[in-house]
Amino acid sequence: MGHKLGIIGYGGMASWHHNSIKANFTDLEVVAAYDISKERLEAAKNNGLIAFETAEEFLSSHLFDIVLVATPNNFHCDYVCRALEAGYNVVCEKPVALNCEELDKMEETAKRCGKLFSVHQNRRWDKDYRIVKQAYEDGLVGKPFTVESRVHGQGGMVHGWREFKVAGGGMVYDWGVHMIDQMLDMIPSKVVSVYANLHCVRTLEVDDYFKLVMRFENGITGQIEVGTFHLVQLPRWYVCGDGGSLVINDWDCNGKIIHTKDTVMNWEPVVVQTKAGPTRTMAPRPADTLEEKPLPDVETSWSSYYRNILDTIDGKAELIVTIPSVRRVLKVIEACFESDRTGTGLKTDI
Amino acid sequence: MGHKLGIIGYGGMASWHHNSIKANFTDLEVVAAYDISKERLEAAKNNGLIAFETAEEFLSSHLFDIVLVATPNNFHCDYVCRALEAGYNVVCEKPVALNCEELDKMEETAKRCGKLFSVHQNRRWDKDYRIVKQAYEDGLVGKPFTVESRVHGQGGMVHGWREFKVAGGGMVYDWGVHMIDQMLDMIPSKVVSVYANLHCVRTLEVDDYFKLVMRFENGITGQIEVGTFHLVQLPRWYVCGDGGSLVINDWDCNGKIIHTKDTVMNWEPVVVQTKAGPTRTMAPRPADTLEEKPLPDVETSWSSYYRNILDTIDGKAELIVTIPSVRRVLKVIEACFESDRTGTGLKTDI
Repeated sequence: MGHKLGIIGYGGMASWHHNSIKANFTDLEVVAAYDISKERLEAAKNNGLIAFETAEEFLSSHLFDIVLVATPNNFHCDYVCRALEAGYNVVCEKPVALNCEELDKMEETAKRCGKLFSVHQNRRWDKDYRIVKQAYEDGLVGKPFTVESRVHGQGGMVHGWREFKVAGGGMVYDWGVHMIDQMLDMIPSKVVSVYANLHCVRTLEVDDYFKLVMRFENGITGQIEVGTFHLVQLPRWYVCGDGGSLVINDWDCNGKIIHTKDTVMNWEPVVVQTKAGPTRTMAPRPADTLEEKPLPDVETSWSSYYRNILDTIDGKAELIVTIPSVRRVLKVIEACFESDRTGTGLKTDI
Repeated sequence: MGHKLGIIGYGGMASWHHNSIKANFTDLEVVAAYDISKERLEAAKNNGLIAFETAEEFLSSHLFDIVLVATPNNFHCDYVCRALEAGYNVVCEKPVALNCEELDKMEETAKRCGKLFSVHQNRRWDKDYRIVKQAYEDGLVGKPFTVESRVHGQGGMVHGWREFKVAGGGMVYDWGVHMIDQMLDMIPSKVVSVYANLHCVRTLEVDDYFKLVMRFENGITGQIEVGTFHLVQLPRWYVCGDGGSLVINDWDCNGKIIHTKDTVMNWEPVVVQTKAGPTRTMAPRPADTLEEKPLPDVETSWSSYYRNILDTIDGKAELIVTIPSVRRVLKVIEACFESDRTGTGLKTDI
């Protein structure tokens, strides 16, 4: 039996969900939408949806069994709870909430109502991330000591409600949430400290640049950086381990793994005169001690997210994007804001 | 009238000083050396120096007016103080000391003896650094929000006494001291917080990788990273400001500055479908809104360091590498170790 989905907030992300579901599912159909904007309701109608002008009518219609909440972030908590109370399974756009207090309320409501509640952390299925995860799990760079994840945009603009603090705007909430989620998903260890600097480079009140460094209990240093005004970009991923280094330059997943051959200790380090002066420690390594390997090949699709939601509702699978996993991400986000506000690092137990 | 220099510790760095002085100065001559190793004393003799087998004989000889201390780091304090007490001007290799307590003792001795005391922070004259400093001062990327300085070696080895904690080994002391010095020299603002992670990737007791992030009072986030086992290297310098971005890829100073043209706000941002999904914030910018500029051209030479030392002794110049400037670097280094040890960040007033 197929499932039907209704959308609260038919903006940019919602129509992406709509199209993506249409293209990938025969057992999931988007049928209805509610929005506060007449223009977007018109768009929903034009896309073949039943458009509701009030949340009450939408929630009492029961024309669908799953609700997607895709409003600005500050409205997530209220709509998620109302949809759960009305008896729907709920998928919420990221970030699920502005803070853990909101999330607690949402999770408590989901438990009480006995309904599925998940968050659209679809980037766990991004190809670049899956390649890094595969390399990590297969030890392709040995034991990593630093894992760095960057998204360097060029535009220098933050759009719509994402410009405003009250709406949960800014890059930590918008992109940081994905990149923190990926890193926590990949590294099976607690976050024991967090340090972050947030900047308003070309914005008035929300961060359009942040640098986050966190230490994991297993020793790995994780770094996440997002900005909107980088006219030169550093690589999307950079991972160094005691057996080699990995780089993924861009969304197209151009990159490589370099590791040392068995002959690693058979070269005699000498002091060389570089433009940097005499150095033995930083002397270039003979090229024949290095070996380049391609990045591992992975198959991945964002539709796996909704596949898992449907299978979980049908009792055929375990939920992948669980609320405890989402809460860890939100705790790191809270620690980022706190670190930036207090101007120091935080010991954490996340 | 010319000056003469005697060297305590005739190892790798000392012979570099010797050759460099020979090549660049007519009014400074290296004449003597003391070392605990017979082999290195032999080398000094072969290079035309008078070789002393004891520090006492060396220090009472007065065949020179300047002493260079180029021993392992843990011996700096003792030799510097003895040379000052014996009436010499003293140049000490970096890092000047293992901690501020040692430095206090050295500075107090220099003041009491009325002699010049400086530290060989020669990398203030590195070409790559001077280019960044020029770009910073000329506002070529506008107001910077992040300044990143990296040295990614490949060798995976730390050599000689630099492997040992007791000798003041490890990358924070060895390379960090230069890179922190450069950043503090360039950014005219207090360091208000420090966060660092140190790793022993392929060493037993000293850091062969560290990541340091510090916040300056003027808002800039500084990042310094040094490692010995990076088989893929990130750029030597990466600076982003509200007017553009600068990158210097390598010691050869290949790099560029990219900034936006006046037309910056005249393009209409659209939602684009990238491999990263639909995004407006991270959509690529039309190429014709960007302009590439070459890095500024700078003339610089390491010999400027000794030139300033001689001119200061002769009353013709002010000392450039002052002890207060060196103390700030040492304070950041102490904060790095403390941050790593306590596993959190530190508020600082440096």
